[in-house]
Amino acid sequence: MNTVWNGAGRRIEICDVGMRDGLQMEAQFVPTEDKIALVDALSAAGLAKIEVTSFTSPTAIPALRDAEVVMREIARRPGVTYTALVPNARGAERAIESRTDELNLVMSVSETHNLANLRMTRAQSFAALAHVVTMAQAARVPVNVSLSCVFGCPMEGDVALDGVWDWVQRFAGLGVAGITLCDTTGMAYPSQVAQVVAQARARWPGLAFTLHFHNTRGMGLANVLAAIDAGADRFDASLGGLGGCPYAPGATGNVCTEEIVHALALMGYDTGVDLPALMAAAARLPTLIGHEVPSQIARAGRRLDLHPVPPGFDAIRERALAR
Amino acid sequence: MNTVWNGAGRRIEICDVGMRDGLQMEAQFVPTEDKIALVDALSAAGLAKIEVTSFTSPTAIPALRDAEVVMREIARRPGVTYTALVPNARGAERAIESRTDELNLVMSVSETHNLANLRMTRAQSFAALAHVVTMAQAARVPVNVSLSCVFGCPMEGDVALDGVWDWVQRFAGLGVAGITLCDTTGMAYPSQVAQVVAQARARWPGLAFTLHFHNTRGMGLANVLAAIDAGADRFDASLGGLGGCPYAPGATGNVCTEEIVHALALMGYDTGVDLPALMAAAARLPTLIGHEVPSQIARAGRRLDLHPVPPGFDAIRERALAR
Repeated sequence: MNTVWNGAGRRIEICDVGMRDGLQMEAQFVPTEDKIALVDALSAAGLAKIEVTSFTSPTAIPALRDAEVVMREIARRPGVTYTALVPNARGAERAIESRTDELNLVMSVSETHNLANLRMTRAQSFAALAHVVTMAQAARVPVNVSLSCVFGCPMEGDVALDGVWDWVQRFAGLGVAGITLCDTTGMAYPSQVAQVVAQARARWPGLAFTLHFHNTRGMGLANVLAAIDAGADRFDASLGGLGGCPYAPGATGNVCTEEIVHALALMGYDTGVDLPALMAAAARLPTLIGHEVPSQIARAGRRLDLHPVPPGFDAIRERALAR
Repeated sequence: MNTVWNGAGRRIEICDVGMRDGLQMEAQFVPTEDKIALVDALSAAGLAKIEVTSFTSPTAIPALRDAEVVMREIARRPGVTYTALVPNARGAERAIESRTDELNLVMSVSETHNLANLRMTRAQSFAALAHVVTMAQAARVPVNVSLSCVFGCPMEGDVALDGVWDWVQRFAGLGVAGITLCDTTGMAYPSQVAQVVAQARARWPGLAFTLHFHNTRGMGLANVLAAIDAGADRFDASLGGLGGCPYAPGATGNVCTEEIVHALALMGYDTGVDLPALMAAAARLPTLIGHEVPSQIARAGRRLDLHPVPPGFDAIRERALAR
């Protein structure tokens, strides 16, 4: 039987992407001071990395139009990486000026998804991002590249793995520090995940791979465990399970940070995250975004958050014992 | 890396409990002919076992007051086991008279949960069920016993495994055919599951063990996979993910049959279930029960149920290619 079920203290790093991947989808603008407070709460809870915001055009994503202020005013904890999404050179300038620890670039390995989402061919995206990598290197800021649709495209279907590896190799050739393999719309399944992670680690042992899953079809945690079994130890997850994808209606969000932390802690993994502090941060979300979050831990509580006996229990017991 | 991620055609038997464990919780009465049609649809979809109904007092569970009619009028497929919950001797008489293939008895390994749910001490439950086992044996009808709260009690907390094994041993001593280890309120976690299943199989190699999980805290599929890795090959699941537990408010339902079948099929396991037929059956539920079901597959579709490109996609591509 596999050792993946018993973490034995193995360290797993979680990057919370709720402040970017989650909030960018929300209709209700979360006030800047609340965003800062949420990032600070995530820092205090012990997350290894936090995707703080996106340096996108404020007209394209008004929900994150306060990127500079948030990035500048958060209280930075030593050891925590504060990353941000950067779509282009203008975004890179803003992110670097705001002292972002890491630039997270994004393109899709699916031509259709890249065109639909970024309005560029993949070749055009790569050329633009290669320029951004040069800017980041000049400023000595590490770069991570998030590749969308690695496990399938909601419009094209299966994506050939050889094509994925070509894009990884091209970014590796630019000297990026890490690659996030993204299951953008929840198409990944455990056997596929185990294969993809094993191949990625074998081919590029020097690259830091992160796995980004959605729980669209209920396979989020199983995919995390299959990835861990194949050697992965960095995962994206979203506070409250916020997020989604406009090209896959009905899709539920990213894997939920508190669900993943809860499960991994029970299994003996060390995420470094204080679960009650994390749950307290997640509990602020419904008021800020105007609706409930997908998090099942938010609703059901932790495994040993017990419930009272039903009304009249003592009488039930006495009647039973009197029989 | 573990072989659990690749099913390699291994057979997994699914018992759908939605008609009993699911419908018993519903406020809206599902018409008898619709229940029969749903069971027939589950038979046609290839489920190995179907928990058709509960022979409980019609005043206690009015939602299932038509147990006899449903059990008698379903179209029985050879090879499918039609089981029913039986709480007591009166229920056993009714179930046997209705030609039920298997009686599914239930008690809790938690004294508090047994009192709250069944209004008896565990010793009283066991004595009553021992009598039912004798009745079933006289009628040559196999017995399965579902033990609630094996992985934790929502009121007591952790349940000592030695106590669980004592109850298994007592029922094994009566000659029952199978035991279902139930995670009644979603407290199970994968490392615990792997340990429990391995111990159960090692101690009672002749007993047919079934695992019954809830997805309350997002660990349902991961628990199924941990159980499979430890040798389990029979699982309860509920059409649409219906179900829950009145003593754990906020708890989501049983693991969803179509989610489990979908995931296991992708991983190469053989459940024998026709997923489109199963999804068509699940699609009838919202109208019958008056609300949406938890099933994520019902919302998001299967992994390769693709989405159209967004409006204006051709123009987007042409503009990109013209650059």
